[in-house]
Amino acid sequence: MDNTYWTERFGGSAARIQASTIRELLKLTQRPGVLSFAGGLPAPELFPKEEAAQKAAQILRERGERALQYGPTEGYAPLREWVAQRFGVEVEEVLITTGSQQGLDLLGKVFLDEGSPVLLEAPSYLGAIQAFRAYGPRFVTVAMDAEGMDLEALEEALRRERPRFIYAIPTFQNPSSALMPLSRRERLVEIAHAHGVPLVEDDAYAELYFDGKKLPTLFELDRAQGYGNVVYLGSFSKVLAPGLRVAYAVGPKPVIAKLVQAKQGADLHTPVLNQMLVHALVQEGFEARVARIREVYRAKAEAMVRALEAHMPPGVRFSRPRGGMFVWMELPGVNAQALLEEALKEDVAFVPGAPFFAGGGGENTLRLSYATMTEGEIQEGMRRLSQALGRLLALV
Amino acid sequence: MDNTYWTERFGGSAARIQASTIRELLKLTQRPGVLSFAGGLPAPELFPKEEAAQKAAQILRERGERALQYGPTEGYAPLREWVAQRFGVEVEEVLITTGSQQGLDLLGKVFLDEGSPVLLEAPSYLGAIQAFRAYGPRFVTVAMDAEGMDLEALEEALRRERPRFIYAIPTFQNPSSALMPLSRRERLVEIAHAHGVPLVEDDAYAELYFDGKKLPTLFELDRAQGYGNVVYLGSFSKVLAPGLRVAYAVGPKPVIAKLVQAKQGADLHTPVLNQMLVHALVQEGFEARVARIREVYRAKAEAMVRALEAHMPPGVRFSRPRGGMFVWMELPGVNAQALLEEALKEDVAFVPGAPFFAGGGGENTLRLSYATMTEGEIQEGMRRLSQALGRLLALV
Repeated sequence: MDNTYWTERFGGSAARIQASTIRELLKLTQRPGVLSFAGGLPAPELFPKEEAAQKAAQILRERGERALQYGPTEGYAPLREWVAQRFGVEVEEVLITTGSQQGLDLLGKVFLDEGSPVLLEAPSYLGAIQAFRAYGPRFVTVAMDAEGMDLEALEEALRRERPRFIYAIPTFQNPSSALMPLSRRERLVEIAHAHGVPLVEDDAYAELYFDGKKLPTLFELDRAQGYGNVVYLGSFSKVLAPGLRVAYAVGPKPVIAKLVQAKQGADLHTPVLNQMLVHALVQEGFEARVARIREVYRAKAEAMVRALEAHMPPGVRFSRPRGGMFVWMELPGVNAQALLEEALKEDVAFVPGAPFFAGGGGENTLRLSYATMTEGEIQEGMRRLSQALGRLLALV
Repeated sequence: MDNTYWTERFGGSAARIQASTIRELLKLTQRPGVLSFAGGLPAPELFPKEEAAQKAAQILRERGERALQYGPTEGYAPLREWVAQRFGVEVEEVLITTGSQQGLDLLGKVFLDEGSPVLLEAPSYLGAIQAFRAYGPRFVTVAMDAEGMDLEALEEALRRERPRFIYAIPTFQNPSSALMPLSRRERLVEIAHAHGVPLVEDDAYAELYFDGKKLPTLFELDRAQGYGNVVYLGSFSKVLAPGLRVAYAVGPKPVIAKLVQAKQGADLHTPVLNQMLVHALVQEGFEARVARIREVYRAKAEAMVRALEAHMPPGVRFSRPRGGMFVWMELPGVNAQALLEEALKEDVAFVPGAPFFAGGGGENTLRLSYATMTEGEIQEGMRRLSQALGRLLALV
C-alpha cells in the first residue's frame, strides 16, 4: 500500500503530528568534524556509569523478580516516596513518568481538546509544543525577557482567553536560559490563581544553578498560599541520565489520579528496573553528584560567555546563563537559518530559534548548547560562528 | 483546589479515560491467602535474572555513555535490525516501543478520531480497549469462537462500517485463549485487503505455543500476497521480562514513520539501557529460553485443564489452551461478578469477562491465568472455585 492509502486512513491528529524540524536538522549537524552546539544532550562524562553498573547488577540479582515484572502504573513505591518527601507532599500526589516528555503528553491528553487554548512562553520547549500539538489545541503565546514570561502580556492574554493551563519553564528555560526571579514567580502564581487557570511548571533544569542559590518553585509558592493550582514536572535526566527515561509529576490528587489513568493506557508503567536503579542512585552521593554537574556546566557556561564576548560582533545579543545548558542569541537583522547554512561551511552548528515559537516569529534567534563541549571546542566553535556571522553581516 | 475545579478544566478525553475496573479489582485479590488467577503476569521464575545482571553491568561499564544518553526515537539500531531480520523486513519498517501498550496508544493517536469506528473482537484485550478509548472512537465488535474472529460477522460489519482498522489477536488471545487456524487467517487477510481496511495484529503470545507448531502470522500472510496492509505488534514481555517495557511494531514505512513522529512527542524514545539489554539477551540462548517458557506454561495449562475437568460442574464451558497464559470460561446462567464475590470467600480469584467486551455483554464469562501458579495451587484453586460455583448454582 502506498503513502496515500495510509494518509487516507490516518485520523486528524496524524496531520498535526510532524517530525521535529530540529530533529531533521540535527542529522545534518552530526557529520564528522562539525562542532555541534545544536543538541540538548547532557554531558555523558557525568553519567554514573560504574555506580549504575553495580546497582543494576545488584538489583537484578537480588530483586530481579520485581525489577523484571510488571509494576504499578503510579510508579515504584520507594521512588514515589522519595519524591514525595523531597516535595513535602503525599505519595498520592506523585506519579513516575517515562521521562518528562511523557508527563507533557499525558497533560495534553487529559487537558487539551481540539481547538482549546493553551498558553505558552515564546519561545518555549519544543518537546512540549510537539506533545501538545498532537491534541490540536490553539497556542496562545506570551513574550518573555531574560526574567521569564512577561506578566503584563500574560494578564492581557488572560483577559481575552481562558487557556486550559499555562505552561511555564521559570528556571533556566530551554531554549532561552531565562531565570524568573522570586517576585515575578510570586506574581505569576497569584495571576494564575486569580484567573482560575492551572499552571504547569516544567523544571527539568532546577538543580543546575551556578551561583549556589535555588529559587522557590512555582509549586512551592502556590502551596505556601494553599492554592494547589500547580502541576510540577521534574526529571532525573539532567542530574543522573536521560537514557533511563525516569521523571515525575507532582500535583493535586485529582490531577495525578487522572494522569495515572491516562498513563495506564499509554505504557502501563515506567520500566521497573529503571525506577529501582534511579532510587538506588539517589540513596548515596546524589547531592555531591549534582554539585559536581553544576560545577562542570558552570565552567562551560563561563567559557561560552567569554568566547562570545571575545568573538561576537556588536549588535549580537546573547544570554548570560545563571544555570542550565543553553545560551540564547539574538542576531541583528540576520536570519538564523541562513546563518546555520553559512556556519555549516565552517563546521559549526546550532539550533535556529524559530521552531521554539509556537505562534511564529523568532527568525533572528538561535540556541547554543555548551553541555557536551570542552572549553577548547567552545572557543574554537564560537570563533568559527563569528566568521560565518561576519560574512553574513558584511552582506547586510 | 477540589475535584470539581479540576474536572471543569480537563478536556473531553479525561472523561473517557477511566481506571480499569480489573485493575481496581486486582487490588482486592491481592490480600494474603488468596489464590489469584486474576493477574496477567508472566511467571517470574522464568525471568533471566542472572544473565540480565551480567549483561546490564557490562553494558553500563563498557557502553554507559550510550546506554544512559538520549537515543533515537526509532529505537536502538542493533535491536531494530534484529527484529527486521527476524521478520524479513527493512529496518525502516520497525519501531521499538515502550511495551506493546505504547504501540496501541500510538496507533490510537495516529488512526483514531472522536467518533471514528474501530473494529475489535468480542472479547478483546483490555489494554487495547483502554488505549483506544482515550481517543473517543466508536467500538464495532465482532463475536469470536475458539478459532478467533467470526469472519461472517466481520464481513457483515464491514458492509455497514468503514473502521479505521481491524484489531485482532489471532494467537492465544488474551482473554479467550482462542487460536485462529491457518485457513481463517488467510481469509481474514483477504477480507481486510478487499475492503481496504488495515489490520493491526497483536501477537504478544506468539512464541508460547504448546504443540511445536507456529502458525504463519497475519503479517506474513499479507506480505506473501504483496498487500502490505498489516501492522504487527510484538513484545519481549512474555519471552524475556515485562518490567523492561520493550516491544516493537512492524509495518509499512508510512505507518512506522508516522508512529515514530507520534512517539517522539510521547516519550522521546524507549530507554536505551533496556533496549541494549534486550538485544544482549536475545544474542545467546534465546531460543532455548523460549522453549523452556513454553514447557513450563504447557505443564501449567495441562494441570489447569485437568483440575477443571475434575472439579467443574456440568454446563461450565472452558477453553483448552494450545498456548499462551489463559483459560476462558463460560458459566451456565451465572454472573461472573457474583461468582467472584462468592469465590473471594473461598480465597480464590479470577477476572470477570465483561470488561473485555468493548460493546457490552459477556457477563457469564471469566478469565483464569495459570502462568504464576504452581500445579498444586491450580488444583486447590479450581477446587475452591468449584465450591463457590456449586453454591451459586444451587441457588439458580
